Amino acid sequence: MSNKLRIIPLGGLGEIGKNMMAFEYGENILIVDTGLMFPENDMLGIDYIIPDFRYLLDKKEQIRGVIVTHGHEDHTGAINHVMGEINAPIYATPLTRGLLEVKLRDGKLYDKVKLNTIKAGDRLNIGPFTVETFHICHSIPDGVGLGITTPAGLVVHSGDFKFDHTPVDGWPTDYAKLAEFSGRGVMALLSDSTNADKPGWTPSEAVIDPAFDEVFRTAPGRILVATFASLISRIQQVANAAMRHNRKMALVGTSMVENARMAQKLGYLDVPEGLILPSEEALKMPAKKVAIMTTGTQGEPSSILGRLSTGRNRQFDLQEKDTVVLSSHPIPGNEEMVHRTINRLFQRGANVIYDPIAPVHVSGHASAEEMKLLIHLVKPKNFVPIHDELRHLNQHAAIAREMGIAPDNMAVVENGTVLEFENGKLSVGERVRGGYVFVDGTGVGDIGPTVMRERESLARDGFVLVNLRRDRKSGQIVGQPEIISKGFVFVRDSEELMAAAREKVVAVAGKANGSLPKKIEDTLAEYFYNEMKRRPMIFTMVNEV
Amino acid sequence: MSNKLRIIPLGGLGEIGKNMMAFEYGENILIVDTGLMFPENDMLGIDYIIPDFRYLLDKKEQIRGVIVTHGHEDHTGAINHVMGEINAPIYATPLTRGLLEVKLRDGKLYDKVKLNTIKAGDRLNIGPFTVETFHICHSIPDGVGLGITTPAGLVVHSGDFKFDHTPVDGWPTDYAKLAEFSGRGVMALLSDSTNADKPGWTPSEAVIDPAFDEVFRTAPGRILVATFASLISRIQQVANAAMRHNRKMALVGTSMVENARMAQKLGYLDVPEGLILPSEEALKMPAKKVAIMTTGTQGEPSSILGRLSTGRNRQFDLQEKDTVVLSSHPIPGNEEMVHRTINRLFQRGANVIYDPIAPVHVSGHASAEEMKLLIHLVKPKNFVPIHDELRHLNQHAAIAREMGIAPDNMAVVENGTVLEFENGKLSVGERVRGGYVFVDGTGVGDIGPTVMRERESLARDGFVLVNLRRDRKSGQIVGQPEIISKGFVFVRDSEELMAAAREKVVAVAGKANGSLPKKIEDTLAEYFYNEMKRRPMIFTMVNEV
Repeated sequence: MSNKLRIIPLGGLGEIGKNMMAFEYGENILIVDTGLMFPENDMLGIDYIIPDFRYLLDKKEQIRGVIVTHGHEDHTGAINHVMGEINAPIYATPLTRGLLEVKLRDGKLYDKVKLNTIKAGDRLNIGPFTVETFHICHSIPDGVGLGITTPAGLVVHSGDFKFDHTPVDGWPTDYAKLAEFSGRGVMALLSDSTNADKPGWTPSEAVIDPAFDEVFRTAPGRILVATFASLISRIQQVANAAMRHNRKMALVGTSMVENARMAQKLGYLDVPEGLILPSEEALKMPAKKVAIMTTGTQGEPSSILGRLSTGRNRQFDLQEKDTVVLSSHPIPGNEEMVHRTINRLFQRGANVIYDPIAPVHVSGHASAEEMKLLIHLVKPKNFVPIHDELRHLNQHAAIAREMGIAPDNMAVVENGTVLEFENGKLSVGERVRGGYVFVDGTGVGDIGPTVMRERESLARDGFVLVNLRRDRKSGQIVGQPEIISKGFVFVRDSEELMAAAREKVVAVAGKANGSLPKKIEDTLAEYFYNEMKRRPMIFTMVNEV
Repeated sequence: MSNKLRIIPLGGLGEIGKNMMAFEYGENILIVDTGLMFPENDMLGIDYIIPDFRYLLDKKEQIRGVIVTHGHEDHTGAINHVMGEINAPIYATPLTRGLLEVKLRDGKLYDKVKLNTIKAGDRLNIGPFTVETFHICHSIPDGVGLGITTPAGLVVHSGDFKFDHTPVDGWPTDYAKLAEFSGRGVMALLSDSTNADKPGWTPSEAVIDPAFDEVFRTAPGRILVATFASLISRIQQVANAAMRHNRKMALVGTSMVENARMAQKLGYLDVPEGLILPSEEALKMPAKKVAIMTTGTQGEPSSILGRLSTGRNRQFDLQEKDTVVLSSHPIPGNEEMVHRTINRLFQRGANVIYDPIAPVHVSGHASAEEMKLLIHLVKPKNFVPIHDELRHLNQHAAIAREMGIAPDNMAVVENGTVLEFENGKLSVGERVRGGYVFVDGTGVGDIGPTVMRERESLARDGFVLVNLRRDRKSGQIVGQPEIISKGFVFVRDSEELMAAAREKVVAVAGKANGSLPKKIEDTLAEYFYNEMKRRPMIFTMVNEV
């Protein structure tokens, strides 16, 4: 048997999200993360995207385990898709496990899957892999990085990390463990590239506290803080600020309420009795005595914040002197929706505070100097930038070059490109599948380029449908053709256009031999383009009568 | 007659683009700018958006002139729409005039419109308005701000500005004129808010030179610099760098070639004979001897850069060791497309350099400290933040409050809200029209919420069409119903689904009385939702035979 370690990136290399990676040694596979990706603006109608993990399906029997590094959707969201196909135990820290449990129950897989609770500092034997977990700071508690000792050498996987010296939970990234790995000799470091183009050091979560103090001190009425439902440390910071400034607090929105409840139960959220009120009670209190937390930071129209911004929230409305804090950054691609929501909140009279107006959010990912520190701490022989777009992988590689890693000891690759390690030497291997699998409703992978192109065309210019009846014997048109359109023109103002189109159909039908539908469609396409400079899809139904 | 000045923002207040404003005194109207706006991601199929200027159409006879402050699309792009409706002279500086001429010729309006060339420092009498133009720095040469003396007082309009001490053309913003206005007493300042949330001072164009020197010094092959076609100063900077580093230069792309030619003719671009080669010649030169400039900085798939990124450019392809510089920032909303283009350029082996990787672009708009300086120089009694989203108008107002402008002397309003000035006092007046007018092909304003909703629905889940024939006498279905779908499912893999759908149609048709189409559509909607969790538009054609 070859003593080759193969690392197969199935997601997250060259894109934002759906992180997933397989470590393969002989006939043993370890999966790290099973994330989803949110659709980009031109992925019309798609709900979300999962990794293409068909590579694993021929090797199901070889899969020894699935480790999930933390509880964010881009690392957990495809769990049901993966666990529906394979049979292997899952390993996760308590909070991550809790979040996975909710998903597995939703997917009716909870009873079928073996879940193992681990904690940072554990050493796990999974097939030929010895996995040592180490704590990392990130924008959700209880995240871990991995030191994976394989017969081919030690690989360190950073997870999503930052080096925060003053994290809200008081639990910094485990420098000592990283240094210990380096003492043993690290064959390869796989490190998070998300903020590779951000110079310097990502600010600590602690910088938010003074900004919150300023908001809480000066807000003339209610305070609404919107953040990610999983950002438990932010809930803690708002709770702390509420205590300091004598406000009560309420959480609104199912996902946030549930996450907070789980975090409190598991000890990741420390809030005194009586601080958090049910929202009905909080909403009855004097405006200056209450702070409400909710979700909707990405401009989602159906979120509480989205509904407040358009005056369609059920339980309560914005009121004068409300201060809304967006304690978040837009996920790339969501900028327009987020800004629209902020503008609408202003329109409705709220004062809206968001970064960069005030430092009310910090990133959960390392910036360039932290990336350098990790490389220095770990002193890897080989380096592979992981997580995020190709431009960030490239920039992370440029940083590693500055740190003295030779180009031969690095590989910037995208999903599906296998990395092989043999005798400490990195080489780029074959390409396996590693693309997008679109999930739309219950359809997984059925939507491909054809349907997407149809949706794009329909989105751009709509369609026109011509329905006519033709006498079987004479070939003559019976009655008037019917023309229906959607998404093409405003029908009520287009009677002339449509009347002319009907005349053209009749004229073409009168003298056509051969393919009548095609002739009608060509004629109308030309007519509509000349008149409107639009290119709707056109369909013709010819019914013999 | 009342001595009231009315300022009517018709565009640009509360949005990015389509800047347009009317100054109305008695029966005299002066228009400033006639811009367009680029569609947001969810404005499906829309080509561009123009201001709703119907307010002016009842008062066409009162319009005394149209001043265009600079040559960017968001200030010029609706010129044909406006000049097609009104009859008044246009005033613009030489470069702006040149760019307007191109548009007016395209729109077959050139012969009908009177164009007046003005220059910074001119004093124009337009009806009861005396307009003094003053030079401002921006990301296109020859921009002006306006001091408009009205019978109600002096109003200063900043145009799009920054305070660059070392602009490429050596022509800084006219501080002296601003100070002179302040000496006379400024009733109101209308000032550009685009970068209100950027602290500090926008870097000078001069900071780009060292970054370009570094690129030109180290690039191992060809250099491709992409920027906005109108950014003449950037063309100058690349020309200067090319000279310093012994490279020849070529411009690729019609709009850039034409703009450069016009700028050279009018003296805004200073390039020695023989530096700029025709692209065919430049492409034959050794790679290290050439720098190519082109457009496509917004990720437009049909631009040269877009086509290079997907390997579909006609004249030339990317080659190994190419360095691509994106000397630009994404226009808000374009981030995803721009980043995708960068990633694709990396995929094709180019090294891509863009801000923040290196400072190869600076904004053309003032940051917060410059906004403060303008307020200090002008010392206005009243202040109105103009240009850009509501969140930026609000932040600009917050800056003005810090500078001592009282809330009563400010108004943060959106398009269509009339501002009135009487005896030096600002008040918010009536609301007139000020919304979006969508332009799609030749249709101006015909696409409204109905068609947009149809396009959204089609984009999300496509449509299904059922065509059937029914015997006129028996009411029985004749033959099999025909089902066509687009954008809903991948037809080749959906035979079972469609066969089942046809059966359902037959079953419903067999027992239906009353509205058969509605029954079929309801049945199929339920069936498709249960099976696929998708909601296509469904249409049924029942043909009596």
